[in-house]
Amino acid sequence: MGVDFGTLSGRAVVVRVRDGEELASAVHEYPHGVMERQLSDGTTPLPPDWALQHPEDWCEVLRRAVPAAVEASGVDPRDVVGIATDFTACTVLPTLADGTPLAATELSGRPHAWPKLWKHHAAQDQADRINALAHERGEKWIARYGGKISAEWQFAKALQVLEEDPEVYARCARWIEASDWIVWQLTGTESRNACAAGYKGIHQDGSYPTEEYLAALHPDFADFARTRLEFPLSALGSRVGSLTARAAQWTGLPEGIAVAAGNVDAHVAAAAAQAVENGRLLAIMGTSSCHVVNGPALADVPGICGVVSGGIVEGAYGYEAGQSAVGDIFGWAIGQGVPADYAAEAASRGENLHTLLTRKAAAQPVGGHGLVALDWMNGNRSVLVDHHLSGVIVGLTLTTRPEDVYRALLEATAFGTRVIVETLESGGVPVHEFIVTGGLKKNTLLMQIYADVLRRPVSLAASEQGSALGSAIHAAVAAGAHRDVRTATAAMGRLHRNVYVPDPSRADAYDALFAEYRLLHEEFGVRDGLLHRLRRIRNHALTSTPAD
Amino acid sequence: MGVDFGTLSGRAVVVRVRDGEELASAVHEYPHGVMERQLSDGTTPLPPDWALQHPEDWCEVLRRAVPAAVEASGVDPRDVVGIATDFTACTVLPTLADGTPLAATELSGRPHAWPKLWKHHAAQDQADRINALAHERGEKWIARYGGKISAEWQFAKALQVLEEDPEVYARCARWIEASDWIVWQLTGTESRNACAAGYKGIHQDGSYPTEEYLAALHPDFADFARTRLEFPLSALGSRVGSLTARAAQWTGLPEGIAVAAGNVDAHVAAAAAQAVENGRLLAIMGTSSCHVVNGPALADVPGICGVVSGGIVEGAYGYEAGQSAVGDIFGWAIGQGVPADYAAEAASRGENLHTLLTRKAAAQPVGGHGLVALDWMNGNRSVLVDHHLSGVIVGLTLTTRPEDVYRALLEATAFGTRVIVETLESGGVPVHEFIVTGGLKKNTLLMQIYADVLRRPVSLAASEQGSALGSAIHAAVAAGAHRDVRTATAAMGRLHRNVYVPDPSRADAYDALFAEYRLLHEEFGVRDGLLHRLRRIRNHALTSTPAD
Repeated sequence: MGVDFGTLSGRAVVVRVRDGEELASAVHEYPHGVMERQLSDGTTPLPPDWALQHPEDWCEVLRRAVPAAVEASGVDPRDVVGIATDFTACTVLPTLADGTPLAATELSGRPHAWPKLWKHHAAQDQADRINALAHERGEKWIARYGGKISAEWQFAKALQVLEEDPEVYARCARWIEASDWIVWQLTGTESRNACAAGYKGIHQDGSYPTEEYLAALHPDFADFARTRLEFPLSALGSRVGSLTARAAQWTGLPEGIAVAAGNVDAHVAAAAAQAVENGRLLAIMGTSSCHVVNGPALADVPGICGVVSGGIVEGAYGYEAGQSAVGDIFGWAIGQGVPADYAAEAASRGENLHTLLTRKAAAQPVGGHGLVALDWMNGNRSVLVDHHLSGVIVGLTLTTRPEDVYRALLEATAFGTRVIVETLESGGVPVHEFIVTGGLKKNTLLMQIYADVLRRPVSLAASEQGSALGSAIHAAVAAGAHRDVRTATAAMGRLHRNVYVPDPSRADAYDALFAEYRLLHEEFGVRDGLLHRLRRIRNHALTSTPAD
Repeated sequence: MGVDFGTLSGRAVVVRVRDGEELASAVHEYPHGVMERQLSDGTTPLPPDWALQHPEDWCEVLRRAVPAAVEASGVDPRDVVGIATDFTACTVLPTLADGTPLAATELSGRPHAWPKLWKHHAAQDQADRINALAHERGEKWIARYGGKISAEWQFAKALQVLEEDPEVYARCARWIEASDWIVWQLTGTESRNACAAGYKGIHQDGSYPTEEYLAALHPDFADFARTRLEFPLSALGSRVGSLTARAAQWTGLPEGIAVAAGNVDAHVAAAAAQAVENGRLLAIMGTSSCHVVNGPALADVPGICGVVSGGIVEGAYGYEAGQSAVGDIFGWAIGQGVPADYAAEAASRGENLHTLLTRKAAAQPVGGHGLVALDWMNGNRSVLVDHHLSGVIVGLTLTTRPEDVYRALLEATAFGTRVIVETLESGGVPVHEFIVTGGLKKNTLLMQIYADVLRRPVSLAASEQGSALGSAIHAAVAAGAHRDVRTATAAMGRLHRNVYVPDPSRADAYDALFAEYRLLHEEFGVRDGLLHRLRRIRNHALTSTPAD
């Protein structure tokens, strides 16, 4: 049994241990969704950039989606040998020593008592200070994260609690990733997984940041890691406990079956796509893209999101990189509108605008639109680690049509991926194969562009539920049905290899455009601060009272 | 009587000599319009980039619009004291020695026998060689045209005739601007106006390019200027003849009245806008923009379209600069489409999309969109004289909306104008006042942006028919009703002064954005050849057979 906890819902999938066949799945939507304006009491308002979740929503997934999936599969529940979960990250919450969420205590009216969802963005000030101090003190771990800790991660969010609501902070005995908290609900005992601790918790070389460093951030923060985080880490796929009687009652699964260590949704997908061997890069492509790849050694790769020993699979260094927006950029372009005759054409063919623009864009030769774009409409995660960058489109003429811009944006994200792949390789992390999972794998034009731009075949994960399948694979390992994650992945992961192969002449044409992308990348991302200055001008304009 | 010959129609206006009051006007659409696909015989095809006109269409304007305007005015035709005309340029035709168009001879089936409209763009190859040779030989005149002669002008078009149809060229006794040919029809005698000869005919310092230079272009071209162009030039507003009996019959005007020298539509508008005094810059703003301003001395201003002694008014050096696309860029942006909710909002308010975007854009503080753009979607005429440049938009984010891009494009054209004004001033041509005429003067947001960006008041020409009124002013001078063009302009030209004045805080905010525009201008227009490379990539892609 694999259970994937997403941003708006949780999905359970029943998977056959022998071959990874997905027998059935079920989804439960979170009744409270994402709390961004007010708490679930309907009265307590939330400041801008907040995003909270309700722990009961997650438990409901166990109570509803899990039994529903089993029932739909026709499998006898007694044949289920193990369960594993994966979660969005960093989604993190304060609890009592026994794991009770502070949100379920008398503090429930205090926003800081609630779980902070990954996209809670109100701790930027704390993140800035975390980063500045780390560089000032020459903390070794900062280089493992591309030189920058995200405002989304554990330390920034915890420091925000301390500074904005010290009473909640004082009551917080444990500060725990939701990926570990949900396992606590299944096993009755705390555990901490190596993936979340490494990528989101600054756990490197066996330890968290020092008390000295934390004290310099805030005197009362000195013991944060020691008192609220510290716990032996569990390897991914390891059995961290057994299903309790209570959890067995919730799920309808047998009491005492294996429960695997928690995991993160992006990283666990590598198992489903047979991408755990060194050099097999998995791109999880949706609104944004996340790239995970294992390497045999610790390498200093500038601009990656993180490198964690055992962060994807035991015995390898897991590298993570990302692009802040991919599908979001295409959606934005379509949202800018299309000419009336396009809308009419789409309507007459029963197409949506995406299909229409794709069809028109696909008919063009490489470079025929005369455009090159920088795909930084939501900043640049890798390899520039600069969220204050913005997008650029170059080469516009009076004959430029929406499909030209659309195609240039598809290509720009492919160029951004190529920069990441080349940076990994030149940084000492070989990339042998490029595998795609996530919603965008269905976009045939996009996939062919990636193959041509990367000059590599593009393989596709077969499963539509990569994370839930990945969790099920880890459950099988925890239950002892396979020797380890690599073995289980080979048996249960499913992959369509080399679905798209590069066309040499198109690849040649893209080389010329990529050279231009590289120049713009350097000019706007490194050499000139224009994009930062424009952002400052904008922020100043929007916060000043306009003169007119 | 002023008659303005445009691209698709001719307009006649009856104007009171005393004060410039426009008593009535009439328009005649050219039945043949612009011939771009085939000759008027309906069978002879035309190659790409050709654009021809029919001389009879022009004569019909004299036969129809002129009497119609007089009748509509209620004026006794016998009270009309003079007639003047202005024309698009360079619109040019081959004739017999008596002015008969070759198109009206037995050569009428030969495309090269017909008048080439200004936007006939098939002589680029000839223009390239004209320019290369001029620079190679260090011809002094090339600097007067920003270092580049246009493919639209007299020499390139004539050389194309010689090279592609030498028989037509051999029969061509006179190669004459339509602005002079129409005057020939009125007076029965040839004349050549200083404006067209200077700006479109490379007439500088009293002479055309030398026979030696022309022979180096093509041996048979050596005597081109001497035999087909040479003629004493007439000052603008001078009387070059009297209305013939035939022309009096056509127009219904009295035989023998004064006929003024021909003129060019953009330059003649300066008279209508009281913009003939030194330092009063007139921007004729429509699909593209043309800037004309007089200065007391010959100055070396890089990147202007041309400087001609007496080219706008006698006794001054007339400077011309331009922007290849202005209104066309706004139309392009709207043509890219708008989101469906915008279209619905416009429909519900009974607005067009332009009005909708303008309203939304006008609500923003300066710099609030975070964007800066280069307005080169149709190349850059001044001051880079580079038609192979293209547009750039910088600063895009996922929250960028169509009105943001729209406003950034309005601003980009204002920045482009500011570069031209600053280049004129630093080149030794003072600009005291900024006056706008043409269709875009009604765009209140655009006009305010220009005032703020330029840090100058914007004055507006009062007339909606600036060129026709300008011609009428020249007719009054030719008839002796006013002493000279300056005097007549003061009496008859009409101007609303300082309709828009700069707001200091907005002007300050624009200074910051203009600094960024300048940097992009240098980077993309001068330092880096990216835009040229993209164009080459595009042209290669579109002319090769796509691999897929």
